[in-house]
Amino acid sequence: MNKKTILTGDRPTGRLHLGHFVGSLKKRVEAQNDFNQFIMIADVQALTDNFANPQKVRDNINEVTLDYLSVGIDPQKSTILVQSMLPELFELTTYYLNLVTLARLQRNPTVKTEIAQKGFDKSLPVGFLVYPVSQAADITAFKADLVPVGEDQLPMIEQTNEIVRRFNHIYQTETLKECEAVLSDVRRLSGTDGNAKMGKSLNNAIYLSDSEEEVKRKVMGMMTDPAHLRVEDPGKVEGNPVFEYLEAFDNDKTGLEELKNHYRKGGLGDVEVKKRLIKVLEDLLSPIRERRQEFAQKPDFLREVLLEGTRKARLVTQKTLDEVREAMKLNYF
Amino acid sequence: MNKKTILTGDRPTGRLHLGHFVGSLKKRVEAQNDFNQFIMIADVQALTDNFANPQKVRDNINEVTLDYLSVGIDPQKSTILVQSMLPELFELTTYYLNLVTLARLQRNPTVKTEIAQKGFDKSLPVGFLVYPVSQAADITAFKADLVPVGEDQLPMIEQTNEIVRRFNHIYQTETLKECEAVLSDVRRLSGTDGNAKMGKSLNNAIYLSDSEEEVKRKVMGMMTDPAHLRVEDPGKVEGNPVFEYLEAFDNDKTGLEELKNHYRKGGLGDVEVKKRLIKVLEDLLSPIRERRQEFAQKPDFLREVLLEGTRKARLVTQKTLDEVREAMKLNYF
Repeated sequence: MNKKTILTGDRPTGRLHLGHFVGSLKKRVEAQNDFNQFIMIADVQALTDNFANPQKVRDNINEVTLDYLSVGIDPQKSTILVQSMLPELFELTTYYLNLVTLARLQRNPTVKTEIAQKGFDKSLPVGFLVYPVSQAADITAFKADLVPVGEDQLPMIEQTNEIVRRFNHIYQTETLKECEAVLSDVRRLSGTDGNAKMGKSLNNAIYLSDSEEEVKRKVMGMMTDPAHLRVEDPGKVEGNPVFEYLEAFDNDKTGLEELKNHYRKGGLGDVEVKKRLIKVLEDLLSPIRERRQEFAQKPDFLREVLLEGTRKARLVTQKTLDEVREAMKLNYF
Repeated sequence: MNKKTILTGDRPTGRLHLGHFVGSLKKRVEAQNDFNQFIMIADVQALTDNFANPQKVRDNINEVTLDYLSVGIDPQKSTILVQSMLPELFELTTYYLNLVTLARLQRNPTVKTEIAQKGFDKSLPVGFLVYPVSQAADITAFKADLVPVGEDQLPMIEQTNEIVRRFNHIYQTETLKECEAVLSDVRRLSGTDGNAKMGKSLNNAIYLSDSEEEVKRKVMGMMTDPAHLRVEDPGKVEGNPVFEYLEAFDNDKTGLEELKNHYRKGGLGDVEVKKRLIKVLEDLLSPIRERRQEFAQKPDFLREVLLEGTRKARLVTQKTLDEVREAMKLNYF
């Protein structure tokens, strides 16, 4: 049986952090054995709200690639590609823009929320408004069966499948393929300050590439139960980011249960719990960090990974574009 | 001194008619000796409001090419190209979309008028709304100095030059070049029914490829002075399409002046004036028609004209895209 195709990826706007690891990187490392997995470094999409800062996007292509390799994404098993290096995606986007109304784009709940968050209002760049159409081009170009997304991204999948149905209907073809969203079963990891979102701008993220000292400093500064003032006080485990992180990363589940009971009862200081978390994170991060340093010394290898991945990806996107052009009768010669 | 570059072209949505001849084709034939002239068959733009009818667009690429060659556009002097075969244009459009706000696009007077005419309203396809950005990509990709336009198209040139200035400012470059609109000094030719616009949908056009019989029939059916009922009545020359056409195509200016005076005085029937117009049009159209028939028998030559023109054009658009990517720091490898 043919392997199913997954399309996933990241905007190269910053190094990847523990939230990415739990939410997606770990799964990609597992999935690469059983699926035909394409991992897209979405620089074109990153530019839609970073167009005035292309150096940031450029630098982070390298950082994100290092993050991928250091967590165990294997370029022999997964195809890592750079979005802007696939001209077919621009062309597909253009054709799909004819199949989507302005009213429909303006109704997209994800984009609406993001527009509000970014305060675009009257200065909304058209490139940002239409990025769901560009995503539809990405997904359909690879004929992805599965697209891992967060719940807030479901409208993107709907938009893609609408375009697929409209295209296939108008051009009387079965060229394009509907995809299925794969919702993460893991809760999103909170920031070190307890904020529901972890991110660079919030300054509450632990990066996969943070040094041992940075990890220590960040964990020691983490929010805990604000009512847990003295060691002897009983503490709350729920909503306590330190325990949330232990839950996510500590493999000694029995030990963790005991720790939680002790904390709830009182007599267990935050510093001790944090020391355990530091140890757990170091067990995870030190081999990642080591591999990252090794790969960072091989710029030629990194370059080769991206060039070769993009080359392999283009074989797929070119084939899809050929079929699309044929369906649209644009195959003149 | 270097020749200046002109970008011009047509949407392949129908055969070209006398209005096109007077308004642009004639000038292109002159300009090709003194300018570096690119003539774009804008199929991608045609699809923005004909996306459900790609066969029409496809068929008319051939028709328009035949029209070009038969009026004397020389592929050795002018570069004829097919828009969809230049992938660089799609990519440039995508980057420019980040530099234009939705509010700005919605203010474009030309697009506003067209949206109203086409009755798009709530079903406005995004592809149609953004076509001025795609035009900016066309113009800047060729670094056109001059763009021949009608007065109603001036907002398109403004939009292009805004994008040029914004791009050059944001990316601290001088890569993109502002262009200059060249306004036609010829009044637009009315339809045979006196309607200010000549067009297929109005069924009031005389095509360059019409047969002698069709031309005769269309001229004999032309509107004249509605008050000129009997031969002996004085007739009006102004606003009389038959005289408008004579003005545009009759090279015997003295003879025409006499005719006009006679018509004004009375005693000259419409049929006689129309017969003169038929003769004048036949003098123009019969060699065009003859050449058209010759070229129509050489599909390989036509194909070669478009492939070779597009190949030459791509050298230019690829160079521009390389420069754009460098300015945007997208030249990763």
